[in-house]
Amino acid sequence: MNHAPPLPATDETIARFATIVGETHALRAPDLLAPYLTEPRDLFKGRTRLVLRPDSTAEVAAIMKLASETRTPIVPQGGNTGLVGGQSPRSEAEIVLSLSRMNRIRDVDAVGRTMVVEAGTILANVQAAADEAGLLFPLSLGSEGSCEIGGNLSSNAGGTSVLAYGNARDLCLGLEAVLPSGEILPGLRRLKKDNRGYDWKDLLIGAEGTLAVITGAVLKLFPKPAGREVAYVGLRSPEKALRLLGRAEARAGRQLTAFELMGRRGMEFTLRHTPGARDPLSSAHAWYLLVEISSQRSAEDARETMEAILAAALEEALIEDAAIAQSLADAATFWKMREAMSWAQKPEGGSIKHDVAVPVARVAEFLAAADAAVLTAIPEARIVAFGHLGDGNIHYNISQPLGADKAAFLARWTEINAIVHGIVDGMDGTFSAEHGIGQLKRLELARTKNSVEMALMRSLKQALDPYQILNPGKVV
Amino acid sequence: MNHAPPLPATDETIARFATIVGETHALRAPDLLAPYLTEPRDLFKGRTRLVLRPDSTAEVAAIMKLASETRTPIVPQGGNTGLVGGQSPRSEAEIVLSLSRMNRIRDVDAVGRTMVVEAGTILANVQAAADEAGLLFPLSLGSEGSCEIGGNLSSNAGGTSVLAYGNARDLCLGLEAVLPSGEILPGLRRLKKDNRGYDWKDLLIGAEGTLAVITGAVLKLFPKPAGREVAYVGLRSPEKALRLLGRAEARAGRQLTAFELMGRRGMEFTLRHTPGARDPLSSAHAWYLLVEISSQRSAEDARETMEAILAAALEEALIEDAAIAQSLADAATFWKMREAMSWAQKPEGGSIKHDVAVPVARVAEFLAAADAAVLTAIPEARIVAFGHLGDGNIHYNISQPLGADKAAFLARWTEINAIVHGIVDGMDGTFSAEHGIGQLKRLELARTKNSVEMALMRSLKQALDPYQILNPGKVV
Repeated sequence: MNHAPPLPATDETIARFATIVGETHALRAPDLLAPYLTEPRDLFKGRTRLVLRPDSTAEVAAIMKLASETRTPIVPQGGNTGLVGGQSPRSEAEIVLSLSRMNRIRDVDAVGRTMVVEAGTILANVQAAADEAGLLFPLSLGSEGSCEIGGNLSSNAGGTSVLAYGNARDLCLGLEAVLPSGEILPGLRRLKKDNRGYDWKDLLIGAEGTLAVITGAVLKLFPKPAGREVAYVGLRSPEKALRLLGRAEARAGRQLTAFELMGRRGMEFTLRHTPGARDPLSSAHAWYLLVEISSQRSAEDARETMEAILAAALEEALIEDAAIAQSLADAATFWKMREAMSWAQKPEGGSIKHDVAVPVARVAEFLAAADAAVLTAIPEARIVAFGHLGDGNIHYNISQPLGADKAAFLARWTEINAIVHGIVDGMDGTFSAEHGIGQLKRLELARTKNSVEMALMRSLKQALDPYQILNPGKVV
Repeated sequence: MNHAPPLPATDETIARFATIVGETHALRAPDLLAPYLTEPRDLFKGRTRLVLRPDSTAEVAAIMKLASETRTPIVPQGGNTGLVGGQSPRSEAEIVLSLSRMNRIRDVDAVGRTMVVEAGTILANVQAAADEAGLLFPLSLGSEGSCEIGGNLSSNAGGTSVLAYGNARDLCLGLEAVLPSGEILPGLRRLKKDNRGYDWKDLLIGAEGTLAVITGAVLKLFPKPAGREVAYVGLRSPEKALRLLGRAEARAGRQLTAFELMGRRGMEFTLRHTPGARDPLSSAHAWYLLVEISSQRSAEDARETMEAILAAALEEALIEDAAIAQSLADAATFWKMREAMSWAQKPEGGSIKHDVAVPVARVAEFLAAADAAVLTAIPEARIVAFGHLGDGNIHYNISQPLGADKAAFLARWTEINAIVHGIVDGMDGTFSAEHGIGQLKRLELARTKNSVEMALMRSLKQALDPYQILNPGKVV
């Protein structure tokens, strides 16, 4: 797509934008702008002259209308936790549209099990509101204390509950959004079925704020399980983990609510760098699983199912050892070991990251091939592989060799990406399973995606955002 | 949208189309064309000079390329079971593209639980192939013996298993499709997560063949339940049915795999007109439910859950009577009573039909309001309401008064639609829950849909099908 340089907003235009939200909510001072310009991985340094913090869909609509009129590029931003730079403004010409003030939970319908929320609602607050109503909103990710539901939907977030409940797209019944023109798409519908024409909702979900600004959503809620059991399992190989997955799904169906794979090295990093971390098992294993079973019936029922699965797995020699959490505190510790793994890599130096997925049945094959190829390229590399085995989604990260030069190691990012993604591609996999494209993977997308699909994406962008003012330079 | 009259194909163009598929598969004789021109409700009489039966995606691509070059309108057709005329050619200028020869099941992956099928595969054959692999493909509808999976996806079919497994959209991981230009969109991916750009898959699903021709799909399969229990329940009111739904979902979670509501009149029609039908309960009730529980564990477990739910419901006086199927034959009879209801209305004369959904919690309110309004308009009307209570989706049909003139009654179709749809609209519901828009509801869609949404739909149509050659006069 031809990305003409965006028009920098004149002082007069900036003043008009500020008037829409009021001066207090039009941030211009560098110290106020700063939090909107950094991102979690420090890969992109954002730049802007203005952050707008509207309080209503009408204000968002007015902002987009003015942006359209003046051809001003707008970068929508939620909790600013994205990992691919999709939320970062690339130049001072771009204005940040923060949804964070639109954080009201408008309605919880406990009978129909739906919740209507504004886009800036923090995910943890959505979870808490569902919990208060005796229900479950299952989306769960490491950044849930600060990420916002609008961003979760724009990036079609995944996380640890996809196996049983699906990704963000699957958890959304209806959307309200503002088009680049400033027109409002009213779709806050609570309907489980609605076949009235084209499904623009799913087109906007996962579009990373390049087609419209999501301002509100109707979310699906679920009955809260009566009991949950969490186990930490040690085993020899991903092949055995896959076989156990099949057994567990056959036995537990969708009561199997988590099946997370972790390699030993990630465990070591986590134990080394996480306060309060402890190994749930008494000896070391090459691979680990965090398995969760949820029962609608009772805690005993969940326990029984878990024990039956693990006993059969021990008998079949699929696993070497297992610990079932004996208390809520145990369960929290087990989960903490998994969640801390993402951050425990940072103190070990540079890390080249991959967010890949392959067909579930081929995960073991992928890991073997990728390990061999990466270790050929960098023999002392320390591979940290972990992720959502039940979804075929592995965070395949490579920490620098001990004592290596960080910058020199990170300079090989593209080279190593090419090796790993090449293997993924050969398995009909994806190099962006749940983190999206943003700025980080945009060129790779253009280079690798089928040309017909790429042309279709561009024509969809053109149809919705003819002036290319919405989050330019991202995704397409 | 400006629907310019389609260009009738010249004899030379028709010959070129025939060459693509071979003369044997280019039908031109009236007796061969006939089956493609009628539809189940006899509302639309199709017309065409040519039916093309390609055998491969490459042939479909060649057909669309030629259609694009010659501006020939093409109507894709699957099993020809659609209820809104979406599959019927409106004039002799339109050529039917039948997918029925593309009926191969390319692959079943029992570990990853996916199946790759061609668009013309009959739904029952998909179900059978899953079953043979020890797995479940849950999509289930009355026409499953003849409808084809490409049509199911194009219409985002619903049916009786949506409650636990979702609609057709939720059951599809990847699509292959041919654009109006003849270009092939290759998306037969088996990935549970893939965030590489815009989600065109969900845009094509439910587009009723107006944006592209679906040629293949990757379907999700599920573990087969170890046990299933089916109960027929008699109760006093939809309010009580809704309360029971809440209790059953809390107890069984997604083990609750069907929750179908039926009014007494539908039961009477079914008993009267269905060979082998019998009332599972000993006395008459105002309303009925068909409830199904599936357990991954065992038949006993499913039975236990069912008994616990029904015992509590009797105690709470939510229900009046219940019969649990004591054999597979019983279960089949119970299901037959539900499925025969659609067809049992035909012998009773004219029927004005509605395929509506409202938020689940409001179904009882809808039924009360609609009954009152319809009986005010036609005091002797015989209302047959039944459907998927768990989805908020009711087939709200009105049989003519006894002895009334059929034609005079059916002449009030639009008037009665307006009454019922007005009530639905006031509850933020939909007048097309699972059957789609097609020809039947196209004008109503244009009249009632929000203008911003309607404009967006038109610009999506324009982006994908600039010459308006694909299924013109349908949906938008």
